Amino acid sequence: MQLVSDELISRLRTINQFSGNQIGQNRLVYSPTWVKGQQQLIKWGLAAGMAVTVDAYGTVYLDVIGSQSPNGIVATGSHMDTVVHGGKFDGLYGVVGGFQAISNLVAALGRPKKTLRLISFSEEEGSRFPATFTGSKHYARVADVHDIVDHHGISFDDARQKAVAKLQFPGVNTGLPALPDSFTELHIEQGPRLVNQHLQIGLVTSIVGQRRFTVTINGVANHAGTTPMADRHDALLLASSLINRLAIIARTISRQLTFTVGELHVWPNTANVIPGKVTFSVDTRHVQKAILDQFETTLRSEIQKVAVAPFSVSVNRWVNDQPTLLDADMLRQNDRWARKLGLSTAIFASGAGHDSEIMSRVVPTTMIFVPSIKGISHAPEEKSTPADLHAGVALLQESLKHQTY
Amino acid sequence: MQLVSDELISRLRTINQFSGNQIGQNRLVYSPTWVKGQQQLIKWGLAAGMAVTVDAYGTVYLDVIGSQSPNGIVATGSHMDTVVHGGKFDGLYGVVGGFQAISNLVAALGRPKKTLRLISFSEEEGSRFPATFTGSKHYARVADVHDIVDHHGISFDDARQKAVAKLQFPGVNTGLPALPDSFTELHIEQGPRLVNQHLQIGLVTSIVGQRRFTVTINGVANHAGTTPMADRHDALLLASSLINRLAIIARTISRQLTFTVGELHVWPNTANVIPGKVTFSVDTRHVQKAILDQFETTLRSEIQKVAVAPFSVSVNRWVNDQPTLLDADMLRQNDRWARKLGLSTAIFASGAGHDSEIMSRVVPTTMIFVPSIKGISHAPEEKSTPADLHAGVALLQESLKHQTY
Repeated sequence: MQLVSDELISRLRTINQFSGNQIGQNRLVYSPTWVKGQQQLIKWGLAAGMAVTVDAYGTVYLDVIGSQSPNGIVATGSHMDTVVHGGKFDGLYGVVGGFQAISNLVAALGRPKKTLRLISFSEEEGSRFPATFTGSKHYARVADVHDIVDHHGISFDDARQKAVAKLQFPGVNTGLPALPDSFTELHIEQGPRLVNQHLQIGLVTSIVGQRRFTVTINGVANHAGTTPMADRHDALLLASSLINRLAIIARTISRQLTFTVGELHVWPNTANVIPGKVTFSVDTRHVQKAILDQFETTLRSEIQKVAVAPFSVSVNRWVNDQPTLLDADMLRQNDRWARKLGLSTAIFASGAGHDSEIMSRVVPTTMIFVPSIKGISHAPEEKSTPADLHAGVALLQESLKHQTY
Repeated sequence: MQLVSDELISRLRTINQFSGNQIGQNRLVYSPTWVKGQQQLIKWGLAAGMAVTVDAYGTVYLDVIGSQSPNGIVATGSHMDTVVHGGKFDGLYGVVGGFQAISNLVAALGRPKKTLRLISFSEEEGSRFPATFTGSKHYARVADVHDIVDHHGISFDDARQKAVAKLQFPGVNTGLPALPDSFTELHIEQGPRLVNQHLQIGLVTSIVGQRRFTVTINGVANHAGTTPMADRHDALLLASSLINRLAIIARTISRQLTFTVGELHVWPNTANVIPGKVTFSVDTRHVQKAILDQFETTLRSEIQKVAVAPFSVSVNRWVNDQPTLLDADMLRQNDRWARKLGLSTAIFASGAGHDSEIMSRVVPTTMIFVPSIKGISHAPEEKSTPADLHAGVALLQESLKHQTY
């Protein structure tokens, strides 16, 4: 067990070190750091004698081919990308932890009957391009991406092709592998519930629905000193009052409705010019579609109210993920294996979106959470104890064993 | 007169064309476009047989040496830099218009008794580095700049030295020229008063005082989906409510007090992360120091109120320009010459800061304004009619003539 522990922590450290001296982890999809992460995983897979495939989006699949192949594939994994200034475990823990669980099984039990597949999805966070879960959506044949660009004007396709070309090592297959019989995602909780209740494992019933919008306000840029206050059409002042109003509205609709303006841009963004244009994101999540509908309707009517000429205000919805139920049978099984291993569990919904949400549309899917210290995630301070990280891998390993051997 | 007209407009166009296909003018100090602007002016000066000097900050001085030299220097000019996405006339009109007035005088009357000096100050706007009027402050021996960097982390000194090196043409003197006997700045009004009253010339009694602050809010970055609303410390939500509150306070103190948040930055600035840090600028101006004092005291107390742990909020004042009286005698003379030329005048305070504010601390200084269409400035739509631009040059020319011949 000590050796196994060292491997898990050491592999996490290896990939996290690719971010060097940056603030937190910055494996934005198709960035140089992201490429290094996927390359490292491919190297580990090849060294372990696994069959390695890279698809057109840069998702990496590492297969231990089962004796019954081609019948039966059991998959686990998560995503390689991070948010800007992200943490060391969101996504990567499910990738490296899945690799560790499979490696442990093969070392202990030899070749499985069903194929064991580790998946490292290319992108889940939506941090670089205005689209989320592009990796799992491509694999699940749910949706593909067209005509989007990042904030530097680089197109998704250009970035994708250049990055994926760097994953084409000798011995690596290309193409889109078949769907598995089931998918299990190991992940940090990213919230405070397990830690607050002193529990080791979270089993996930469902994933909140989430919608993301971009609000664009066009006002009139002008001189900050010579334009009388009464003659101004200041896009940032309007944005500030709209953001305040929307925060109050969200709270009024439901205390469980999350509301986040995470991204805001100002033009020309200089101290002595009245802002002529502002864009900001709105991210909102809830387990009930009706609540999300109510918020969206109110958002649109609030925007109508303030869009008085010469102001123009528009809203663009670019994420609309429905609340999703995960597989109840797989959850019950995992609860059983957890008890067998002596691990305490909590059963709850996930406040974050996950690749599992996409995978659950096409195959039975479940998630295993481990505690996040202080509930912090999407930040450099994101952390989980080694003991909790190992417990999650142990449960995943037990679950995969019962499905494949 | 037609030929003269063509030269003025054509020279403005030549320098404005250096910004190419960018949105508006972007001659931020020491940028490649700024370098081209100052180089062009130097070429015009050398071609006209003027004595050209460049100082250590990149301010350009073009002298027509008077017959009484070294006794007596009469200076005019303005600044070469612009705001981000600025207009075609702010600063540049006073530089090119001053050059035109001096050229016209020499063409018509030959060598002046006193030296005629055209000054193109390096920087006035404070758009790139957190400092304003650095060019005129250096010339007036009022202040020098130390240890500041732009948003890319480039130091003022590095940028300055590299750019100034590109102005060292053969025949160009270096060093800091002596102060003149007087300074006259020709400028667009940048506000709506002349246009609203259908008047041709504004004569400036005084310049508003202005203060600029940077407010920094540190909250806690966290996951936008899994962090309950009650557990958040969202730096952008706090910034929005603070900005709204400050706007109301400014209006309450005085309707004539301008309040602008022109620049705002968010960290990490990604849709699915609660903002952990926000900085924003506050620009506020008024003709009375007491009003500015009152605003600043209230700003500081409001910040104290919201700086509740784990939030930390700080304010840094980086501009504190006092309200300034310009020279009354020079204004009266200009009003006389304007009437002689048949030009209608208004006499008022300037809502914008100008190099004249700095120059007036060391020599008698006056300003001549021409109308801005719709009062728009610091934006690509900034415009003045050719007739008004020529009228301003004509008045400047008359004023310089009476001082030097």
